Amino acid sequence: MSSHLIAAVQMRTGADLEANLARARVLVERAAERGAELIALPEVFAWRGPRTDEAAAASPIPGRVSEFLCRLAADLKIVLVGGSFLERAPDAGKSYNTSLLIGPDGAIRGRYRKIHLFDIDVPGEVSVRESETRAHGRDVVTAPTTLGTVGLSVCYDLRFPELYRRLAAAGATILAVPSAFTFYTGAAHWEPLLRARAIENQAYVIAPNQAGKSPHGFPDYGHSMIVDPWGTVLARAGAGEQVILAELDPEHLARVRREMPCQLHAVLAR
Amino acid sequence: MSSHLIAAVQMRTGADLEANLARARVLVERAAERGAELIALPEVFAWRGPRTDEAAAASPIPGRVSEFLCRLAADLKIVLVGGSFLERAPDAGKSYNTSLLIGPDGAIRGRYRKIHLFDIDVPGEVSVRESETRAHGRDVVTAPTTLGTVGLSVCYDLRFPELYRRLAAAGATILAVPSAFTFYTGAAHWEPLLRARAIENQAYVIAPNQAGKSPHGFPDYGHSMIVDPWGTVLARAGAGEQVILAELDPEHLARVRREMPCQLHAVLAR
Repeated sequence: MSSHLIAAVQMRTGADLEANLARARVLVERAAERGAELIALPEVFAWRGPRTDEAAAASPIPGRVSEFLCRLAADLKIVLVGGSFLERAPDAGKSYNTSLLIGPDGAIRGRYRKIHLFDIDVPGEVSVRESETRAHGRDVVTAPTTLGTVGLSVCYDLRFPELYRRLAAAGATILAVPSAFTFYTGAAHWEPLLRARAIENQAYVIAPNQAGKSPHGFPDYGHSMIVDPWGTVLARAGAGEQVILAELDPEHLARVRREMPCQLHAVLAR
Repeated sequence: MSSHLIAAVQMRTGADLEANLARARVLVERAAERGAELIALPEVFAWRGPRTDEAAAASPIPGRVSEFLCRLAADLKIVLVGGSFLERAPDAGKSYNTSLLIGPDGAIRGRYRKIHLFDIDVPGEVSVRESETRAHGRDVVTAPTTLGTVGLSVCYDLRFPELYRRLAAAGATILAVPSAFTFYTGAAHWEPLLRARAIENQAYVIAPNQAGKSPHGFPDYGHSMIVDPWGTVLARAGAGEQVILAELDPEHLARVRREMPCQLHAVLAR
């Protein structure tokens, strides 16, 4: 087995959908030029703006954003984790926060709707009620690729280890965590949680983050990361828009799982 | 609610049971003199030696080690996490790796037998088959104390998030992880896993570690830690025998859980 280059794209997404898509294309193309075979965009990579504009900004699948992603993956012949974007939901006025996994042929291989919505209130720091305008997903989603099975998740999901246990049990060896993790919570929690998910599930974690400022007034943390199955941070972004790259090594993955067979020992997870 | 001082004791346990108990008493007394109300000893604090001697070194409950722990807790009027020690098991030749929670009255409030046994083989670094001489525990154990409900676990358990989810669901606000974590795995995994358990379960984590060299030939990691429910490392040991202390603040715990109500959002854990 040979190794593969994978990439996470850090963005500063705003409220101009077409400008965001154009910017995403530039950054994904840059990663592909470096040789990346799997490239991941962050949460709400396509658009983010005021809550009151979300319903209008949401698109169906297929629709503007999914077709953009499928075309991009096919043009570059890459596996693309379509970050997340707002998918029009049947519940009028609400959207799903949806991540798509697209194959190098441009076909949708997986559609994951964010399960855990970010409803928190830290006075003076971060107050959000994502569930006011977003509908909860219900299904745990993995999708096979030539680099391994990808398990899909979005941002706040990272705090719930049981989701990743299910993804790993379903065969995931690459855990995608496209995020818009806030600076306040990210500085305290981003790295230990990403590393823990990699270590306990013995999987690669690819976590592209937003690096701008949310329309709700607080800054994002940036620091996109790629972590290997031993928990080593292979690549780490700074604060601005950028691409980070790392090697995914199937032999390293197999060795970690063989030498410390945690999955065999997980008697309470069965 | 007022805050409480808690302490983790880092030891270098050898194969002389009485010497180890005497040393444990000195260190626990030192922590109690500083005002600690809850004190935790590391894994196999009472004895460790060659695998072939384990059956002979194991004691029943009640027995030499449990009576030592009950007397110590009662003398000092503290809550004592009796690290772990080898408990004689019905399966001849095997022992349980057992942690006791003792109340300030000297009564046993909880008995936890390590569920996940450390069977790994990293060539040139760490090769262990704990299950050769130890029997698996089956029960998830919490015990109420005046400082909060304590959830019990031991060392390698730390890699299995589902155990801590069950402990937290059963009301644990203090997660005890007495360990003999090896240097090789500890340098890579100890801190991110301890912090993740604290963050995702919004609980205090108290993790006393061994700091010597195991009879199987590899060094322990030391670096005992106390972590708060926001994931901040409140106290951290170096490499030798020592006591670390930190404040457990029930108001901080309540605020973290109120501001970010993750337990309410954990739909997949139900």
